[in-house]
Amino acid sequence: MKLSLLLFDGFTALDAIGGYEVLSRIPGLSFEIAAKERGLVATDTRAFGITAVRAFAEVETTDVLYVPGGPGVEIAKSDQALCTCIRRLHASSKWTLGVCNGVGLLAAAGVLEGKTVTTNWDYREVLAEQGIHVVPERYARDGKIVTSAGVSASIDAALSLAGLIAGEDVAKLIQLGIEYYPRPPFGGTSADDAPLAAREVVRKVTRASVAALGTTRPAF
Amino acid sequence: MKLSLLLFDGFTALDAIGGYEVLSRIPGLSFEIAAKERGLVATDTRAFGITAVRAFAEVETTDVLYVPGGPGVEIAKSDQALCTCIRRLHASSKWTLGVCNGVGLLAAAGVLEGKTVTTNWDYREVLAEQGIHVVPERYARDGKIVTSAGVSASIDAALSLAGLIAGEDVAKLIQLGIEYYPRPPFGGTSADDAPLAAREVVRKVTRASVAALGTTRPAF
Repeated sequence: MKLSLLLFDGFTALDAIGGYEVLSRIPGLSFEIAAKERGLVATDTRAFGITAVRAFAEVETTDVLYVPGGPGVEIAKSDQALCTCIRRLHASSKWTLGVCNGVGLLAAAGVLEGKTVTTNWDYREVLAEQGIHVVPERYARDGKIVTSAGVSASIDAALSLAGLIAGEDVAKLIQLGIEYYPRPPFGGTSADDAPLAAREVVRKVTRASVAALGTTRPAF
Repeated sequence: MKLSLLLFDGFTALDAIGGYEVLSRIPGLSFEIAAKERGLVATDTRAFGITAVRAFAEVETTDVLYVPGGPGVEIAKSDQALCTCIRRLHASSKWTLGVCNGVGLLAAAGVLEGKTVTTNWDYREVLAEQGIHVVPERYARDGKIVTSAGVSASIDAALSLAGLIAGEDVAKLIQLGIEYYPRPPFGGTSADDAPLAAREVVRKVTRASVAALGTTRPAF
């Protein structure tokens, strides 16, 4: 079984690495990172890059298609090479995982018609306006499509998917291996419970991150 | 304020990226990755590498020193360049963060004498045998040293550290930004509550990962 993680300029590292750290531990699963071209793909902060070992054109099929999000989604959703690759690989994938606003890339690729998904708390309206049914859950499954709320929710969604792929016993071993018994130091149960003013600050930071992408040179 | 994340061959990606995704969002903080030499550093699975933009020798001082763990620690703890760099940067850091068995690297660098730390559930005895006081917590603080349990605990530890650096309000905004309101799909409250047989399986997988490091060629 093979998992292909698709990267694009300005992805959010934890969107990708949260699920990678879970799913790459499934026994017998091989893991590859693909991008438009082989080589380094810069994260949203421009502080580092991650190596893609395959170009999209080199990935003929995959069993698990994994699409993360990040500020780069705003540009990536108009990238025909990426959207075509998602559509093509999704056509025969056993599972497709979309994380955070990376679910918007699944939408841009045209694979979400009639589907129920989740996404990050600040992106629900964007998808709903496209006629996609959005539920405010940490992760959601509709057929072979698994979707995740924002960034860190990639871990929960991937553990859920690991359970579907390899069974609950294996998923629990992976949970133990990454010691995922979270204890957020300042509590909090949901983004929806955060004060409106806090949500407005984070929205502004997100917009600034999107704007900064085009002007910040990668540090490597 | 500057944070320097030190990487070494065979680090575990989420040990590094969990804390990075939190701490790099502190307003005004600059983030850099350093390694023995500039360039790509391979993760434990060999599936990808991350770019170090600085060599250890190029980092004169730092405010926040961040040392992740991984199967590579077994070899890295004998690496004099790494241990000397940790000792040197820790001497004037404002904060030092050790994650998972990366806390063993802090010990190898000689900066844990008389300190109380946590580490991953499977590494506590190793540190205790060295006379270090180990507590079975998700994260722990002793003066300027913050330590974390395994892999995913880097997120909780980093949020706690973000609160110390920038205050609880900022840390809560970061928590909202990465939507860290975890909901592990199969429950579980602590590694110590996992069945003994499960812990034995994970121990075997860990030993196999350490052994595989020397024989698996990076995919990039």
